Formats: sequence, structure tokens, C-alpha cells
Amino acid sequence: MKRGLLIIISGPSGVGKGTVRKYFEANKDLNLAYSTSMTTRKPREGEIDGKDYFFVTREQFIQSIQKGELLEYAEFVGNYYGTPLKEVNRLRDEGKNVLLEIEVQGAKQVQEKCPDAISIFIIPPSMEELENRIRGRKSEPEEIVQQRLAKAEKELKLVNQYKYIVCNDDPKLAADLIQTIIYRNIEIEENK
Amino acid sequence: MKRGLLIIISGPSGVGKGTVRKYFEANKDLNLAYSTSMTTRKPREGEIDGKDYFFVTREQFIQSIQKGELLEYAEFVGNYYGTPLKEVNRLRDEGKNVLLEIEVQGAKQVQEKCPDAISIFIIPPSMEELENRIRGRKSEPEEIVQQRLAKAEKELKLVNQYKYIVCNDDPKLAADLIQTIIYRNIEIEENK
Repeated sequence: MKRGLLIIISGPSGVGKGTVRKYFEANKDLNLAYSTSMTTRKPREGEIDGKDYFFVTREQFIQSIQKGELLEYAEFVGNYYGTPLKEVNRLRDEGKNVLLEIEVQGAKQVQEKCPDAISIFIIPPSMEELENRIRGRKSEPEEIVQQRLAKAEKELKLVNQYKYIVCNDDPKLAADLIQTIIYRNIEIEENK
Repeated sequence: MKRGLLIIISGPSGVGKGTVRKYFEANKDLNLAYSTSMTTRKPREGEIDGKDYFFVTREQFIQSIQKGELLEYAEFVGNYYGTPLKEVNRLRDEGKNVLLEIEVQGAKQVQEKCPDAISIFIIPPSMEELENRIRGRKSEPEEIVQQRLAKAEKELKLVNQYKYIVCNDDPKLAADLIQTIIYRNIEIEENK
């Protein structure tokens, strides 16, 4: 069986990564799988260990980092979140195309560890449009909005690290373009 | 009947516009039409007036420019080449999606005159790759190669003027992406 692809979808916060993904995640032809992340956050009501997340202690997480068991990791609001390499490899070995929808910093780590990853960067049609989206999402204090925008501007400069750039002007089209990229890479892989 | 789209495909010389187009030009579902250009160049053996080109005199061409009858025009090696607006409108009124594969300067003129144009810019995976392609195409004197590269570098800065950017790393994928963009725009137009 052909080993599955590793697909990274990234982009600045507010660009609409989740919205775009909703348009294609149910498409069976893409043969996608989502890797379960590891976190030090406490499980919420109803969350299942090994399904929603691998719930671990801070010590276990740090050990995983030190052993190089994580493809990428980041800390958010005092909790660690990471992608276990073993999980990704297991799914790929089963022939699944593993999709990682991750932040720009995480994407950089994955690209360094897996140069064969299909990396897709979603960009906003313009900074003005991104600002509208960030402001529209929730009413955050002006300071936070400005921080997000400054971060997005910095992240957009990393566009050259990605193999494919997709502009999210129209989420349906962005999703169609991503699917086209995945189909073609499946085809290339099959003809190898 | 819905009016057809106006699609501009442009990009620096050597990027592979023609190669990419060959992958989708026969796709009937795109409902494409190519507008006949006007030129002051003499017809070559077998070329038919009104089919290959509208062959006109220099005086007629200049009159067309002055009357605003050309969507875009340029001079190459002493001859004028241009796109008659009337031709494009006739095809669009018939419901055809008119594809213009044109140089960056021409594309700019069309975008100014037709802000509703679907503009697609093909970029090379890198300047190094573009250099390889320009050098590989024919053995030109180093001076000409350097001129082409300098021109391409300048043209690549105009990327922001385009609605869609497609990287031509793999011509088949670039063609698939362009088709995806056209299909989605047909869909949007039909739902208007």
C-alpha cells in the first residue's frame, strides 16, 4: 500500500482555516485522517482520552518533547498541545492522508522534520479583509485586535516556506483549490 | 443567457503559460473561447484573416487605438498586436468564457478596462527555476537572458494586481488549479 501524504494547512489566525476545512473534510475521496493531538489540558466533560486528545501530565509532555516524539508543539494559555509523530506515522502507514491544520509556528516545525509534507498556506485577500474578519469574530479589546494583526502581518511574511498558497477570498473556492492540490499530489504519489 | 466570463492568464515570460494552457484548452466544460487578435504583421503562408488574426495596416491599428477599440495592445519587433474589444464582447454575449493569455503589460490594460475580469497570474516556483527554464528554452546570448530575468523580476512584483495566483511547479497541477478557479467563477456567476 502507498504511504499516505502529510498535508499541512496553515495561515495567520483569523484567515478562516476552519471554515475552509469544513467544505472538504467530509470528502471521502481525499482519504483524509486527522491525527489526535497530545495535551496537558484537563479533559472537558465528555472528552475521551485517545480520541479527542491524548491527555498527559506536564512531565509526560516534556519527556515527549525531549525524546523527539512530537512533530510539533506549542504552549497556549499555560497548556501544551502537540502532534505525536507516532500517530501521524501510523495513519500514513495505513495509507491515510494525514491533515494537520496548525498555526504557523507549528507548521514550521513540521516542515523541518518532514520535508516531504504538502504545505499549504492560506492567505487573506488583503490585510484590510483580515482586520474585518478578526474584528467581526468577537468583540475583543482594541489592544488584542492590534496584537493579532501585528502577529498576522509577521506570519504572512513566512509565505515562502510553503509549497502552495491559497487565497481565502471565497471559502468554497479555497476549499476547491486545496482539494485540487491534494488530488494531484495523490496522483503524483501513485505514479511514482 | 448568462454573459461569459473574461479570464486573463498572465505571468512573466518563460513561466510556462502556453504549456499550462495546453492541459485544459480542450476541456469543453469550461466553455472557453479565444478572441482573435488584431495585428499589423503580414500574414504568413496559410494564415486566414479574421481567424488567425485580423490583419490591418499600421494606420488602421493606430486608428483603433485612438477610438478605444482595443482592450489592450503592445508592440513587438516593430509590429502591433492587440485585442479588439468588440470581438471579446461578441463572444461573451454568446455566453462564451473568453480566455486571454497575455503579457503582463497587456493584462494591466485589460484589468483597468474590465474590473470584472478573472485575473490569474502564473508564478515560477522560484527565480532559480525561472532562470533554468529561460536558459533551457533556447540558447540565447547571455545579455538577452539577463534582460529576460530582470524583466521577469520586475513583472513578478505586479502579483498584487491579480485576483488569483497559481504557481507553476507542476504544469498539470497549475492547469487543474486554473480550471478549479474557472469552474467556481462560472458557479458564482450562475447563482447571481
